Amino acid sequence: MTDKFMSMKNLKFTLHSRGGKYCSKTPDYLKDHTAKTIDLVLKAAFDLGKKAMHPMFEEMDRQPPALINGNVLVHKGVRPMLETLGKDGWISASFPEKWKGDDMPASLIHCINFIFAAANYSASVYAGLTMGAANLILSFGSEKLKNIYLSPLLAGKWQGTMALTEPEAGSSLGDLCCEALPVEEGHYKINGEKIFISAGDHDGVDNVIHLMLARIKGAPSGTKGISLFLVPKFRPDEQGNLMDNDLIVTQVFHKLGYRGAPIVGLRMGEKDNCTGYLVGRENKGLSYMFQMMNGARLEVGMGATAIATAAYHAALDYCRTRHQGRKITAPKDSAPVPIIQHPDVKRMLLFQRAVAEGSLALILQCGMYEDILARDPSQTDCHLLLELLTPIAKTYPSEMGILSTSNAIQCFGGYGYCDDFPVEQHFRDMRIHTIHEGTTGIQGMDLLARKVTAENGRAMVLLKEEILLTAEKAGRWAELEDMADTLLSNITLLEKVTMEMTAVAGKKGLDAYLANATLYLEMFGIVVIAWQWLSMAQKAAEKLEQERTKKTDRLFYEGKIHVATYFYSHELARVKSLSMTLQSETMVTLAMPEVCFTD
Amino acid sequence: MTDKFMSMKNLKFTLHSRGGKYCSKTPDYLKDHTAKTIDLVLKAAFDLGKKAMHPMFEEMDRQPPALINGNVLVHKGVRPMLETLGKDGWISASFPEKWKGDDMPASLIHCINFIFAAANYSASVYAGLTMGAANLILSFGSEKLKNIYLSPLLAGKWQGTMALTEPEAGSSLGDLCCEALPVEEGHYKINGEKIFISAGDHDGVDNVIHLMLARIKGAPSGTKGISLFLVPKFRPDEQGNLMDNDLIVTQVFHKLGYRGAPIVGLRMGEKDNCTGYLVGRENKGLSYMFQMMNGARLEVGMGATAIATAAYHAALDYCRTRHQGRKITAPKDSAPVPIIQHPDVKRMLLFQRAVAEGSLALILQCGMYEDILARDPSQTDCHLLLELLTPIAKTYPSEMGILSTSNAIQCFGGYGYCDDFPVEQHFRDMRIHTIHEGTTGIQGMDLLARKVTAENGRAMVLLKEEILLTAEKAGRWAELEDMADTLLSNITLLEKVTMEMTAVAGKKGLDAYLANATLYLEMFGIVVIAWQWLSMAQKAAEKLEQERTKKTDRLFYEGKIHVATYFYSHELARVKSLSMTLQSETMVTLAMPEVCFTD
Repeated sequence: MTDKFMSMKNLKFTLHSRGGKYCSKTPDYLKDHTAKTIDLVLKAAFDLGKKAMHPMFEEMDRQPPALINGNVLVHKGVRPMLETLGKDGWISASFPEKWKGDDMPASLIHCINFIFAAANYSASVYAGLTMGAANLILSFGSEKLKNIYLSPLLAGKWQGTMALTEPEAGSSLGDLCCEALPVEEGHYKINGEKIFISAGDHDGVDNVIHLMLARIKGAPSGTKGISLFLVPKFRPDEQGNLMDNDLIVTQVFHKLGYRGAPIVGLRMGEKDNCTGYLVGRENKGLSYMFQMMNGARLEVGMGATAIATAAYHAALDYCRTRHQGRKITAPKDSAPVPIIQHPDVKRMLLFQRAVAEGSLALILQCGMYEDILARDPSQTDCHLLLELLTPIAKTYPSEMGILSTSNAIQCFGGYGYCDDFPVEQHFRDMRIHTIHEGTTGIQGMDLLARKVTAENGRAMVLLKEEILLTAEKAGRWAELEDMADTLLSNITLLEKVTMEMTAVAGKKGLDAYLANATLYLEMFGIVVIAWQWLSMAQKAAEKLEQERTKKTDRLFYEGKIHVATYFYSHELARVKSLSMTLQSETMVTLAMPEVCFTD
Repeated sequence: MTDKFMSMKNLKFTLHSRGGKYCSKTPDYLKDHTAKTIDLVLKAAFDLGKKAMHPMFEEMDRQPPALINGNVLVHKGVRPMLETLGKDGWISASFPEKWKGDDMPASLIHCINFIFAAANYSASVYAGLTMGAANLILSFGSEKLKNIYLSPLLAGKWQGTMALTEPEAGSSLGDLCCEALPVEEGHYKINGEKIFISAGDHDGVDNVIHLMLARIKGAPSGTKGISLFLVPKFRPDEQGNLMDNDLIVTQVFHKLGYRGAPIVGLRMGEKDNCTGYLVGRENKGLSYMFQMMNGARLEVGMGATAIATAAYHAALDYCRTRHQGRKITAPKDSAPVPIIQHPDVKRMLLFQRAVAEGSLALILQCGMYEDILARDPSQTDCHLLLELLTPIAKTYPSEMGILSTSNAIQCFGGYGYCDDFPVEQHFRDMRIHTIHEGTTGIQGMDLLARKVTAENGRAMVLLKEEILLTAEKAGRWAELEDMADTLLSNITLLEKVTMEMTAVAGKKGLDAYLANATLYLEMFGIVVIAWQWLSMAQKAAEKLEQERTKKTDRLFYEGKIHVATYFYSHELARVKSLSMTLQSETMVTLAMPEVCFTD
């Protein structure tokens, strides 16, 4: 068994295959990074993933975090890993030079996250969470907070978290009731409870810094009265000594997967001695958090993509080496063949590639928009596109990843159901992604209620322009013409459905408009991924035209076009049925009264 | 939290809602069982499931079987459970009076299996496997073998197994190489290895009796040289003492789910002293085994159905009692509502009901055909229908059950990912069913290569007749007319696709014909389940017409019609897209060479 968990060749191909108007306008969106420096960065990330993360992939799952005497004990490899990630500048990579960062573009950060998460998803989240928390401090914190907290966080010595969820307020953040009582300028006493806090406490670091949402006493109810606080586990005093901050771990959740990372419950202020520091302005907490949340959602999508990728490589290796059965037309006494030769096994591998590689392409497309925006904030069209695509980049990999890792298990047959192979763990690790950072249901509402309607539907117009550009370019290759046509008719269908649903909103109200938001998101997602596949197929066709392309590379590019063909015949075809459901007038989820669920 | 794992009301409704030509021809297919005696049987099964199986549902998962000093130790509750199942006649229920059985019809046995598996899937398989093995002995074994082995098996003192799989021959049974050397009349020395043997050894019984496939030395290669043997763990001598039979457990597999039952590897004949007894005639083993396999496949479908049902009830209870969020049109400061009121949550519950209740109906439809055949073997049409529907009854619940239990998790949000609630276990327990007793790929080939083509496609003609009858009857209710029409157009589409695929077989050969067999099975399955839903909706409409129907029952029947509506608008709609893929000419799984999977 090889231990391949990702393909560097495919990652680079995908990163360098970005298409569309914005890419050609600003081809330097990767800043000063050349193909060569990118290679070096990715190679270094790969080496670290392979050596420091991948070897403990199984062990971290089998020996999950435990709460012992109030302390959360994690795998002994976590501390040295975080030290290395800090020391070698991976946690600070996206930060400005002032904080010893490399100001690295988002696209590359996504690639690095991909590599780490494919190597070991649970291990990869620790640093990712710290980056998110540090980013909030950098963007909205006072100079004092920055000076105290950023360095140890970016050095991997302290852990950062995002602490939102409460027992009685999960997806409904407006209902949260964790309280902050002002004591002096910028200082508050925090009192309340949080649950499901990822990396919310562990012995792989010396301190944990929570970026926590709470309600200042007397603030308005609902989402308008939420503020953001920095709440450390230990408060550094003037001399830098760490003092207890009255923040205790109430439980470690025992989870289906993603077991290498501790998800904990927290209790603040039991002795009325938990200090929190206001980050930014009062009652603006949710908007700050949402700024980070978009990034976090792309990261969740990338996590799911990476897990699907690792599972695919395990399955591919097995299907190439496992001999069983023969072609139905072969003589009965012929030798068994590698199972990859069976069309149905090939179908399962194609499906996994279609999901994993298509998802990767979409997230890197989003990364491109992020990077263009970061250079030039006046590119508001990029912002609209990024906003529109984020719920899809979060959801498509997460939902389809469940099926993709399930197909990886199926490739192994009975062995896939046993823990001798990694795919059952990938299947478990995958299942969190449709839940954390906003469930699929929430993403659907976000897409339909906010993103599609924003600026009179302008984002959809922009997306169509991008797709038309890709289809036009691809249409120049005879073998891609059919796909280009199919994509165009599907975007037209999507527009039609969108307009019909908007008409429903006018006639039957918002509830009816949003009742099928999740299905709309599913349909939208397939069309968007089809766009990415056409874009990749076009790049591959371009490469195949070049005479200098090597033979092994040719197989890779031919493979890309085959997977694109698969996507169009097997996956994009699903759009038709979804459109039928969305156009149906039954509205059964509204029509059926709850009391009819008698049994 | 209630602990409801199934609905007796729904089970009885489904059992008594069988429709079609055969039911009305032979309304007494349940033999002398009246509604009243059926109630008594189901009630007794429910009590046993609730008291002896459900309480150890979690524990059996958390304390999985362990191999210690060559012995497989299982949960301490297994032995008393098997004793009760034996003593109270559940294991022998389907057997003739001669063996202290009740000659119980297959339909009722399926209902009992459903109840037990919903209570605790892992616990339910022990007795199921013994029944299968005992059935093989009863059907094909010599009088001597029956006299020695049947009584202790049916008493729950000995465990029965079906031992097919070998390390190098999984789905490809023709390649198995376990060897049998004749020593005296009917006695053989067995030498070889088996893997993935469910309940293949454990300390909850005094002996384990394997019904094992092996090849008699010198027998033809392939499937024609396979014989069936009874291979006990301990050989009873003339005095009934149990002697060691040189059969050792090589490993206990560590599995994703289904952890309460031991799946083991076996080594026979290490000391050249393992005796096996021929069951039936030489080289006929595979045909005997297949006779049982059909029953086993329905049981797998029922297991998946039961797990999906239990997960649904857990989710329903949570969605009714968990308050979070509010209607999008409600005032922001209104109180949070039970999440069942959110349309997207209702959609997830409807999906789970659609899968679980539709699957239950199909398996009971198959049970009806089994029972008619058992009374009157000349009803060959029933045999054809049963054969046609078996791969669907195995696969639809198993494949859709993955999504159904996944939706149950989603209803719980983050809590669903934690082991505080049972749904993550149901999700894990579910995942085996697309693999054991013939993978989904195998079922697709079985449907398309054998069942659809049998007797010149006669089974399809019969199925269409059944469906027309249901549609015609349902069409008499105005509110079901649309559904009846939709079903008819879908069966026409299925016929069309089938004919086109047959044409492909003629033109491009068998490989091309079978390349998309799994997708064909998926399409076929949805149409068949739509038929079952229309049948249930029709019964519900009939009940609603009756004035004496009670108010709470009315809600139940109205609910049924809503779920049927959901199935037609959300699930049956998927057939269109599947037909597009099946009609596409790309054939990408055949066209793409294996070498293109470079990365």
